[in-house]
Amino acid sequence: MAGSTYGTLFSITTWGESHGAAIGVVIDGCPAGLPLSEDDIQSFLDRRKPGQSKFTTKRKENDRAEILSGTFEGKTTGTPISIIIRNEDQRSRDYGKIKDCYRPGHADYTFDEKYGFRDYRGGGRSSGRETIGRVAAGAVAAKLLRELGITVSAYTRSIGGICIPSEEYRYDEIKENPLYMPNNAYAKKASEYLESCMKNLDSSGGTIECIITGMPAGIGEPVFDKLDASLAKAVMSIGAVKGIEIGDGFAAARAAGSTNNDPFFCENGKVYKKTNHSGGILGGMSDGSPIVLRAAVKPTPSIAREQQTITTQKENTVVTITGRHDPVIVPRAVVVVEAMAAVTVTDLLLQNTTSRLDNLKTIYCPELR
Amino acid sequence: MAGSTYGTLFSITTWGESHGAAIGVVIDGCPAGLPLSEDDIQSFLDRRKPGQSKFTTKRKENDRAEILSGTFEGKTTGTPISIIIRNEDQRSRDYGKIKDCYRPGHADYTFDEKYGFRDYRGGGRSSGRETIGRVAAGAVAAKLLRELGITVSAYTRSIGGICIPSEEYRYDEIKENPLYMPNNAYAKKASEYLESCMKNLDSSGGTIECIITGMPAGIGEPVFDKLDASLAKAVMSIGAVKGIEIGDGFAAARAAGSTNNDPFFCENGKVYKKTNHSGGILGGMSDGSPIVLRAAVKPTPSIAREQQTITTQKENTVVTITGRHDPVIVPRAVVVVEAMAAVTVTDLLLQNTTSRLDNLKTIYCPELR
Amino acid sequence: MAGSTYGTLFSITTWGESHGAAIGVVIDGCPAGLPLSEDDIQSFLDRRKPGQSKFTTKRKENDRAEILSGTFEGKTTGTPISIIIRNEDQRSRDYGKIKDCYRPGHADYTFDEKYGFRDYRGGGRSSGRETIGRVAAGAVAAKLLRELGITVSAYTRSIGGICIPSEEYRYDEIKENPLYMPNNAYAKKASEYLESCMKNLDSSGGTIECIITGMPAGIGEPVFDKLDASLAKAVMSIGAVKGIEIGDGFAAARAAGSTNNDPFFCENGKVYKKTNHSGGILGGMSDGSPIVLRAAVKPTPSIAREQQTITTQKENTVVTITGRHDPVIVPRAVVVVEAMAAVTVTDLLLQNTTSRLDNLKTIYCPELR
Amino acid sequence: MAGSTYGTLFSITTWGESHGAAIGVVIDGCPAGLPLSEDDIQSFLDRRKPGQSKFTTKRKENDRAEILSGTFEGKTTGTPISIIIRNEDQRSRDYGKIKDCYRPGHADYTFDEKYGFRDYRGGGRSSGRETIGRVAAGAVAAKLLRELGITVSAYTRSIGGICIPSEEYRYDEIKENPLYMPNNAYAKKASEYLESCMKNLDSSGGTIECIITGMPAGIGEPVFDKLDASLAKAVMSIGAVKGIEIGDGFAAARAAGSTNNDPFFCENGKVYKKTNHSGGILGGMSDGSPIVLRAAVKPTPSIAREQQTITTQKENTVVTITGRHDPVIVPRAVVVVEAMAAVTVTDLLLQNTTSRLDNLKTIYCPELR
Repeated sequence: MAGSTYGTLFSITTWGESHGAAIGVVIDGCPAGLPLSEDDIQSFLDRRKPGQSKFTTKRKENDRAEILSGTFEGKTTGTPISIIIRNEDQRSRDYGKIKDCYRPGHADYTFDEKYGFRDYRGGGRSSGRETIGRVAAGAVAAKLLRELGITVSAYTRSIGGICIPSEEYRYDEIKENPLYMPNNAYAKKASEYLESCMKNLDSSGGTIECIITGMPAGIGEPVFDKLDASLAKAVMSIGAVKGIEIGDGFAAARAAGSTNNDPFFCENGKVYKKTNHSGGILGGMSDGSPIVLRAAVKPTPSIAREQQTITTQKENTVVTITGRHDPVIVPRAVVVVEAMAAVTVTDLLLQNTTSRLDNLKTIYCPELR
Repeated sequence: MAGSTYGTLFSITTWGESHGAAIGVVIDGCPAGLPLSEDDIQSFLDRRKPGQSKFTTKRKENDRAEILSGTFEGKTTGTPISIIIRNEDQRSRDYGKIKDCYRPGHADYTFDEKYGFRDYRGGGRSSGRETIGRVAAGAVAAKLLRELGITVSAYTRSIGGICIPSEEYRYDEIKENPLYMPNNAYAKKASEYLESCMKNLDSSGGTIECIITGMPAGIGEPVFDKLDASLAKAVMSIGAVKGIEIGDGFAAARAAGSTNNDPFFCENGKVYKKTNHSGGILGGMSDGSPIVLRAAVKPTPSIAREQQTITTQKENTVVTITGRHDPVIVPRAVVVVEAMAAVTVTDLLLQNTTSRLDNLKTIYCPELR
Repeated sequence: MAGSTYGTLFSITTWGESHGAAIGVVIDGCPAGLPLSEDDIQSFLDRRKPGQSKFTTKRKENDRAEILSGTFEGKTTGTPISIIIRNEDQRSRDYGKIKDCYRPGHADYTFDEKYGFRDYRGGGRSSGRETIGRVAAGAVAAKLLRELGITVSAYTRSIGGICIPSEEYRYDEIKENPLYMPNNAYAKKASEYLESCMKNLDSSGGTIECIITGMPAGIGEPVFDKLDASLAKAVMSIGAVKGIEIGDGFAAARAAGSTNNDPFFCENGKVYKKTNHSGGILGGMSDGSPIVLRAAVKPTPSIAREQQTITTQKENTVVTITGRHDPVIVPRAVVVVEAMAAVTVTDLLLQNTTSRLDNLKTIYCPELR
Repeated sequence: MAGSTYGTLFSITTWGESHGAAIGVVIDGCPAGLPLSEDDIQSFLDRRKPGQSKFTTKRKENDRAEILSGTFEGKTTGTPISIIIRNEDQRSRDYGKIKDCYRPGHADYTFDEKYGFRDYRGGGRSSGRETIGRVAAGAVAAKLLRELGITVSAYTRSIGGICIPSEEYRYDEIKENPLYMPNNAYAKKASEYLESCMKNLDSSGGTIECIITGMPAGIGEPVFDKLDASLAKAVMSIGAVKGIEIGDGFAAARAAGSTNNDPFFCENGKVYKKTNHSGGILGGMSDGSPIVLRAAVKPTPSIAREQQTITTQKENTVVTITGRHDPVIVPRAVVVVEAMAAVTVTDLLLQNTTSRLDNLKTIYCPELR
């Protein structure tokens, strides 16, 4: 489907370029009866807004979400929810070299190779602004999940080499620092590292962790649409993500079966696992433990140093990228990871309602059960 | 679609349980005119066959592929290709505890939670035998890719803590050791490690690397169906995979932009990159360099030690898994990774044919160009 | 998806050519817990079997269904159900002119134009035998629907110019005549007409009607996946069908609003309509009345008369089709229409389970309602 | 996908309610390089605009299309094309009885049954205004088809009992009468009939015919996604359509094979058919002749007479629908049929590009052919 639609039952279609008139998303398949307002969406959008700290671009982006369809008297109606965000910063300006050369680490070259030409203004469709539609959809999904007792939370786990060990997580500190790290002391160290990056006209990568709690067991479709496989696609489809892990992830590749297996036990008739190396997923289905995933985010490719590259006419040249760019993408990508995870879980939760004939009887003919 | 179908244009549907009558795959959307025989498929299946070394199960599985439809006079016809592999080892036997308890690290518990009951014989649909259909489909995809000058090759990069550094790869040694490692000396060390695992009634994880060469630039659909996102889903959907990386992957999260960006340059009118930290993908589309991905595989969950667990009646118990099990899944999973990568790339290559109006004119009305 | 997969949640993939080794279907997304045996499928297949009367081909086709996966201890497990039917009549023979020319009214020419060549043996994938997979899937869908109190029944409404007026329907006579007509007297007239066709080396068309009862209101997705639109596609995808109507259909185009509208009324708290011109569908969703659809089936294109045509080398020629062919397709297509309607209704019924947030709460957290 | 997305490669997602803020469509998968302006879309929208004659509602709807994304410097970029049309007539007013009762022939009752409640303002999502998004998408598809030498044209064939025989078609008169009929004399008779309907506070149905010329042979996917099956779904998904025919359609059900088969012949190396009973489709694929389809449109359900119905509280009542309503939907639906046909043909044309391995070689490695 040319890749702008994601999801089978809870299905989102995003559109828009960074310097076009607007950007938006259509959410199809949201169940009817969910209370939803523009404020629900705005609170998510505000988390990815630039200008929140010295480590995010100073561009002014007052992204205001407008719901154009799909709600009535404060509730979703079951029909598609169209959300639009007007682009404010559309003034035409001189794109200079950006227009005529390929920025290293960006999608300029690959867009030209695929389509024959590209909208060179600010990255066009490959701009980070593309994620606005995802975040708006994620806000709706997260609202729906909360109605079912499920929460999705992401945060920054590491920036460059500064990584918070799990045992030092302090979740209540996440909102206390501009890097969204669950430990203020590590956040301070990361800030110092980022300042040194900026001085060196350089940028940094990092990792984001996302936890999903309250999931019933059995969500995810065996074989190709496994919960972990679907999450992997969802999160890897975010521009700068280069790696994804579930539970112990790459560490499991170095582990032994005797320590990697999570023993089950029962207490008061409920099922638990003594450990959670699996990250809450077994055989591609949720196992009732918290779901844990981590994403590796590459350093911002836009740096102020001179870089070697080529022109669109295939001649060697150098380019220096000017303008306002985040030295690290991670803090603003936190809410994008959360959004994509929420949309994915929602879609699989909807798909799972028909896994048993009994569920159909409950809904369509309770008297026949 | 309940998760047994994968792909949009080159679409595969797998079916079958480990101890049912047979296992198979239907491939829909394979272009007409591709020379294809059962030998093409058999050579792929033989690579995942057990009994190839002391590190793979001694179960006898003489999986023979039969093509039931979709070819005529040695060529694909464009209609669905149905491939069936009869299960030989179907004798009914005593499944004992396996039937009544949940094996740690397996999908027993999650299957019961999702569907209300499960086919407990040998793992049913969550068995490793489910991958046979994938491998058969991968053989067809790989054959098609070779016609277009594209090759997909996977191998074992690490087992437990024994990891081959990239600079010591010797690709011609891959077929010389039973672990499919590109360095015989490392393979010897890994063999010794696996023997110690077996002595300890334990198992090991490892990593698989896959390289795709010959890809034209621009393949992959921006936004949700990015090449890397699609590969991530494809490979993460393989049972034991817990992590996936593209190019530098998690190392990119610790890197700086100045070193992580790959400078472009031109030589004799052709475009190259000085480095390949991106793993051949920019903005979700192939950039003309080799595509590099790595998968983390968890240790075999079936180990001969006693493990704590619960019964299906939700009572605490212990279980010792008997029978013939691989101490490491990695070597047999190599061809599965290769297969899933081949299917994914083929599907996106097909989708990309309509990216430009000019391509449509070339095919439908060359006289109008 | 190259067109061999149908359905979103209850999804069927058919494969196989008329003279290949076998023909079959994979059903993915069937809810777990449905009692299912090979007899359930066989009884549907027997209804499309040839040799049931003098108006169906004398070819011997003892199509036996084998279930290869997806059931355990007599119930569906939720995993894909693979059903295979071996082709018995595979002896190689001289296809003579059929191989080198295009039969009028058949898909020979269009297959060659699309794929560059074709499996010319007996029609290949465009043979009527392709419908075997559909009928097997329809048997599963119909079984599931009966569990929910829904029935799907089709019958022959007309053959050539002999059409039974609705007021003369006698449903209990359908099984009493080989044409599956709900009136033995009309069936007798139709038989006489068919005999005259056969004497003239000619064939006849006809219409099939299908009624679905017990449907809850609200099934069908507004806009593109309307219940009527989905049924139209499903039934029109059967080889010889050239038209489809819902309710009054083409007669509604000649009607006035005052007579075409169905007035609602209530009795004992239940909702009824005084008439059913709508055929049980309003706004693309079931309205609680019986669903009524009619399909127009063209005359069998294989006739024993000499016909003008061209060779594959684009030279004018004549062809006379020999062999055993039905003078009318309609009676054997009745069960195919029933099967496609059952699959379609099942899929939309599954999709509808997530139309309301309340349904999700009922299934996932009844304590929160 | 909850039914608001249509198409696999050329994929359209519509959104919006009649009395919401706006209505629109997102087109994903349009090939890059197609010249496209807002005027291209406006000219299609103007054809469905009310107020063009005394037989269309006097509501003022100055629907202006705005392209928000997907074009750059006058050409499509390959990224999603978002088109929005603001609703002008949004003033809140007294919906009175409409709010509390179910209008016969409308989707009020089925919406409530499906979702638990509905946006009762002017029909909400089931309003005729929903088709605006389809028409905008159809304008883009039609533009693309013209680049490939393919034209799609629809017109009114009959209104009530007044039907133009094919031999009296005068295509150049279509634009000369407000009913879009290819014969001014018949249009005059139809006008008189419609005036009598209006006097009787009644409405009329009719039929629309659509012709597609210039299609290459072989377009359409065998089995489920046949060209005729796809067209049937596309056209039947338009609100008021109750029947669909291809070629001779229901007349073929009364015909004999000897007259219904179209003989092939060759002239100057090109393939023709002596007749076109098949309507340009054989085996679900285009056969090179013009494609002919007809749709039956029911009478406008909104009539000014008193009708029996029930309240949302399930009590018997009567309703009289006031306001401005078309006595016949047909003339305004002509462009909607054309749009849906254009979108369908475009999607299948895109899908067909990968039917042959040779096409892939032509695009990806012409040097290897």
